[in-house]
Amino acid sequence: MIERIAILGTGLLGTSAGLALRAAGFKGQIAGWNRSPEQAQVALRLGGIDSVTADPLEAARVNQVVLLAMPIYATLDYMAQLAGVLGSEHMVTDVGSTKRLIAESAARLYNTPERAAFLPGHPMAGKERGGAELADANLFRGAVWLFTDDPEAQRSPHSAALVKGWREWVAAMGAKALDLDPARHDELVAWVSHLPQFVATALSALLEDQVGDAPELKDVGGRALREMTRLGASPFSMWRDIAHTNTAALEQALQALEQRLAYLRENLRTPVLRSEFELANRFRRE
Amino acid sequence: MIERIAILGTGLLGTSAGLALRAAGFKGQIAGWNRSPEQAQVALRLGGIDSVTADPLEAARVNQVVLLAMPIYATLDYMAQLAGVLGSEHMVTDVGSTKRLIAESAARLYNTPERAAFLPGHPMAGKERGGAELADANLFRGAVWLFTDDPEAQRSPHSAALVKGWREWVAAMGAKALDLDPARHDELVAWVSHLPQFVATALSALLEDQVGDAPELKDVGGRALREMTRLGASPFSMWRDIAHTNTAALEQALQALEQRLAYLRENLRTPVLRSEFELANRFRRE
Repeated sequence: MIERIAILGTGLLGTSAGLALRAAGFKGQIAGWNRSPEQAQVALRLGGIDSVTADPLEAARVNQVVLLAMPIYATLDYMAQLAGVLGSEHMVTDVGSTKRLIAESAARLYNTPERAAFLPGHPMAGKERGGAELADANLFRGAVWLFTDDPEAQRSPHSAALVKGWREWVAAMGAKALDLDPARHDELVAWVSHLPQFVATALSALLEDQVGDAPELKDVGGRALREMTRLGASPFSMWRDIAHTNTAALEQALQALEQRLAYLRENLRTPVLRSEFELANRFRRE
Repeated sequence: MIERIAILGTGLLGTSAGLALRAAGFKGQIAGWNRSPEQAQVALRLGGIDSVTADPLEAARVNQVVLLAMPIYATLDYMAQLAGVLGSEHMVTDVGSTKRLIAESAARLYNTPERAAFLPGHPMAGKERGGAELADANLFRGAVWLFTDDPEAQRSPHSAALVKGWREWVAAMGAKALDLDPARHDELVAWVSHLPQFVATALSALLEDQVGDAPELKDVGGRALREMTRLGASPFSMWRDIAHTNTAALEQALQALEQRLAYLRENLRTPVLRSEFELANRFRRE
């Protein structure tokens, strides 16, 4: 049923989605656009897209499904622009890491019988560095793909069928769909995704101050240190939008961890230390 | 020159050392003892030791090199017991994660021309779970093996040669030796080893409170969350001794991270966020 897809934003996630669609047997056309034409050429060379387009709005108009794979504020910007040129024969989805603002925009600009459908999506997959060069057809295999769809959406039968079709392709890419309310989504990812990232950033920045001028000392930390700071390589450009659009939930999670660290620190020689290790062990129990 | 080794403590590190010695071509005898006889039998079955001994002091006496591979307080206890039965024909070394107390004990009880030599050692290798079952001949390959030897040690030529010989076997196991002053050692590992562990413990304990009753939500975090909480599985039994013997340095490192997290939290929407990400990126630059 879905035969023509436009991927707007052919970075790591966009190009990986194209490769994963192909690997899952998608036979239709995949057009691609990227702000940086070089990244679109990389995506084309790797086979994530079949053609490069110079006009993202026109590319969206002539295809059925539009995948927005770009940072959150860019996604919100394109949602507004696309709403003016698409109609009930279209469906738009995204991969943004926070969903409250995107779901609000979808309710305002999409999801009536005359307008295009919008399905807010968030695959829990990525690498510590972005770019089409690192794209991987298996990036979404075994990963959770969150959706925060609006149960009140009033869609044309045509666009509703496209939404159903996209969910089937996500399953075919090997991802496990999980549906959440947008506010609950943003609160949950603040704990299980954004907090781990900001901890790795804070730890890496602190250690750069402490031992950054003595690279041989980084080796001393071994695998544990490498693992706990790997996400320190994550790009600001992506995380800025997350920090700006999920500020309150992230503040709450960070403050809770600050308090937890202080609690550990104050109890390094008391029986509390044992109970904290036991609680941590429980989190990691299979 | 070294022909007979006793490994007291045949857990993960002790058994791995035996396997690594064999893999590096050690042809002599390796006797093993463990508080839990079952662990000694596992070490024997895996080939990390050739024989199991019931009396650790006697095993030390009849061998040349004694490797203490046990938690820190147990190491200090055996250092005191062994000092009474060993002499200038012996050398003792250890794998303890903090070195100040062990180096003090070595200066008090070892390293005269009449007494055994003691070389404080600390291989920066391990797994999040212990036990002989997980032993690995390649555990030390590429890892840093720290030493905090006493430059004032007055050793017999015989015991000094054993120290030199042990350092050669450590290199043959594939580890990179690095010599540090004991106080500097404890300060450094507080930052690059103990801090990452306690962060993982605090994060895991916090998330167990937040989402522990909804296991499907752990999956949402994906690889990043798994990696940042892997060390949450580490056993309290080992880390208690570290917390007790390196308290001040660990308190300082934890407090610095609490402040760094608060600084990030207060700057989620200011230009400071960019500079913190850039500093973290620099730590991870090759």
